[in-house]
Amino acid sequence: MQALLLSDYRKLELVDIDRPAFGPNDVLVRVAACGICGSDIHGYDGSSGRRVPPIVMGHEAAGVVAEVGADVERVRIGDRVTFDSTISCGECEVCRRGDFNLCPNRRIFGVSCDEFRQHGAYAEFVAVPQHILYPLPDELPFEHAALIEPVSVALHAVARLAVAPGERAVVVGSGMIGLLVIQALRLAGCHDVIAIDLDPLRLELARNLGASETIDPKQTDAVRAVEELTEGNGADVAAEVVGNSAAMTTAIRCVRRGGRVALVGNITPEVPLPLQVVVAREITLIGSCASAGEYPRAIELVASGAIRIAPLISAVAPLREGPAWFERLYVGEPGLMKVVLQP
Amino acid sequence: MQALLLSDYRKLELVDIDRPAFGPNDVLVRVAACGICGSDIHGYDGSSGRRVPPIVMGHEAAGVVAEVGADVERVRIGDRVTFDSTISCGECEVCRRGDFNLCPNRRIFGVSCDEFRQHGAYAEFVAVPQHILYPLPDELPFEHAALIEPVSVALHAVARLAVAPGERAVVVGSGMIGLLVIQALRLAGCHDVIAIDLDPLRLELARNLGASETIDPKQTDAVRAVEELTEGNGADVAAEVVGNSAAMTTAIRCVRRGGRVALVGNITPEVPLPLQVVVAREITLIGSCASAGEYPRAIELVASGAIRIAPLISAVAPLREGPAWFERLYVGEPGLMKVVLQP
Repeated sequence: MQALLLSDYRKLELVDIDRPAFGPNDVLVRVAACGICGSDIHGYDGSSGRRVPPIVMGHEAAGVVAEVGADVERVRIGDRVTFDSTISCGECEVCRRGDFNLCPNRRIFGVSCDEFRQHGAYAEFVAVPQHILYPLPDELPFEHAALIEPVSVALHAVARLAVAPGERAVVVGSGMIGLLVIQALRLAGCHDVIAIDLDPLRLELARNLGASETIDPKQTDAVRAVEELTEGNGADVAAEVVGNSAAMTTAIRCVRRGGRVALVGNITPEVPLPLQVVVAREITLIGSCASAGEYPRAIELVASGAIRIAPLISAVAPLREGPAWFERLYVGEPGLMKVVLQP
Repeated sequence: MQALLLSDYRKLELVDIDRPAFGPNDVLVRVAACGICGSDIHGYDGSSGRRVPPIVMGHEAAGVVAEVGADVERVRIGDRVTFDSTISCGECEVCRRGDFNLCPNRRIFGVSCDEFRQHGAYAEFVAVPQHILYPLPDELPFEHAALIEPVSVALHAVARLAVAPGERAVVVGSGMIGLLVIQALRLAGCHDVIAIDLDPLRLELARNLGASETIDPKQTDAVRAVEELTEGNGADVAAEVVGNSAAMTTAIRCVRRGGRVALVGNITPEVPLPLQVVVAREITLIGSCASAGEYPRAIELVASGAIRIAPLISAVAPLREGPAWFERLYVGEPGLMKVVLQP
């Protein structure tokens, strides 16, 4: 089968490899669409260390069931499906608690690191255990269904924040996840959702997708602006979806005394933080990683149009164009959001 | 009246100053006992910047009502009382939510900083607003009642952690607050409470006060030891009561996936933290500051003996010996825990 292989850092090649083997509880999915995630870009150049070559990346995917293992009962050949990016074992204590995203035995599609190497969905076929498959409604196009994964991540972050209707929110970072978090917060009953980003194009998108206010920290002191927008109190909750010290510090300083901050961005190991503020103002910092149980709701919300993803897709392109799109995303081409590849 | 004045950093003098003025809603308390807190020591040498001279320190106090303002109804002259270290305004939005400890208009006894200077209880008299007073049962000696403040801090930290019975806990730091947190965790139904400290004397005290296991990180890798004591899972919750990067990192690494860490220690502004662990393991970091509503329970638990404080008191001494005791605490005399001064 055809696959897009990261053979070396910043070197993607279309290659012919064997179809993946699959066991009695697995399904062979013919991939119809697979999104390029920010974490793929951070892996592409080796900076994250989570895509050690050789690896077929890709974990935001949807397709059609092509073959089924002997014990598969949840789906049939021809079913349209998406699947969790995380392969949880389903049996450990963490999984039994429902924290599938934190399973210590987890493998993640398209990731290679010290613990595992799991080829992903920039390929014609991918083998998927049946317990992480989700059927798709007919009306949901594959290029939208591929993005159920990031939608689930956003829903999970908002669930971790335990937002109450009427609470005021700040979202630091208006990339793909940030723009989905904004929509999820609106659905959770937040009328005031303040988006912070350095890119005016993204802030415009944020406004179109439900942000009540937008702040460009290059133009305005973001913390002071949030203070003014909240009668001096600060926001009730914030989501940090960038993953660096400046964004984290902004998120912490934008919430009120007793406020909560979800940490969603992939953060480098050691980050200096204003922890005296966290202690003295009793702020709660809440790590949020991937998703756990949000796929069915994500499918429903995207299929119904309650969460809009069409405005987030910059391009849908054949797999062979993958190398060019990776390079364009890597150099940070302005205005470029989600790119979906079609194997 | 006599008062112990910090006239310059590391310079305490017994001086004669005017009795504090008090308004119609205030009470003049004749101080019977006032504990020396770790934060007083960090203020004594100027390192915290929260005891800018000249200041009369002291915020862990108990005494007898000597005079009452015209509108005071909650207490009468002669009543034995303790009082909150934080003077909340009681009227702002934060106070109305019950977060008196986070009141933006708060003043703290014995603290001087950019925002306020509020003389404390290393003096014969202190003026206290009636709304932060708590009556004491007759059987509770003043030198114990003075420590209701740190007991409340410990109860508040455990409340912030929302501990469920049977959860396993780690406490990083076995100073005064750590030893009270250990006791509060036992009362909250934690049978496994693992104490971590560098001082063998404090670890012995921790065992006597309810720690199920103790770890000296100089002798053993604390994270690995906790892992072994919890069948490889990590603790459910941890409390950090030291306030430095090493202790915080230990606390974060000792909890399980999805675990919670209370940040109680006074932390220097910028601390590097392993935040990738926080995100990838969905750890929740919970700032905890002073207390809010815990005084009545603290009084009850100390009076009934459910929380033991006698073993934590190293010395009860007259106010004039304050300078010598401050110096002994400042140089970190081994085995020295709480010192209570009697004005």
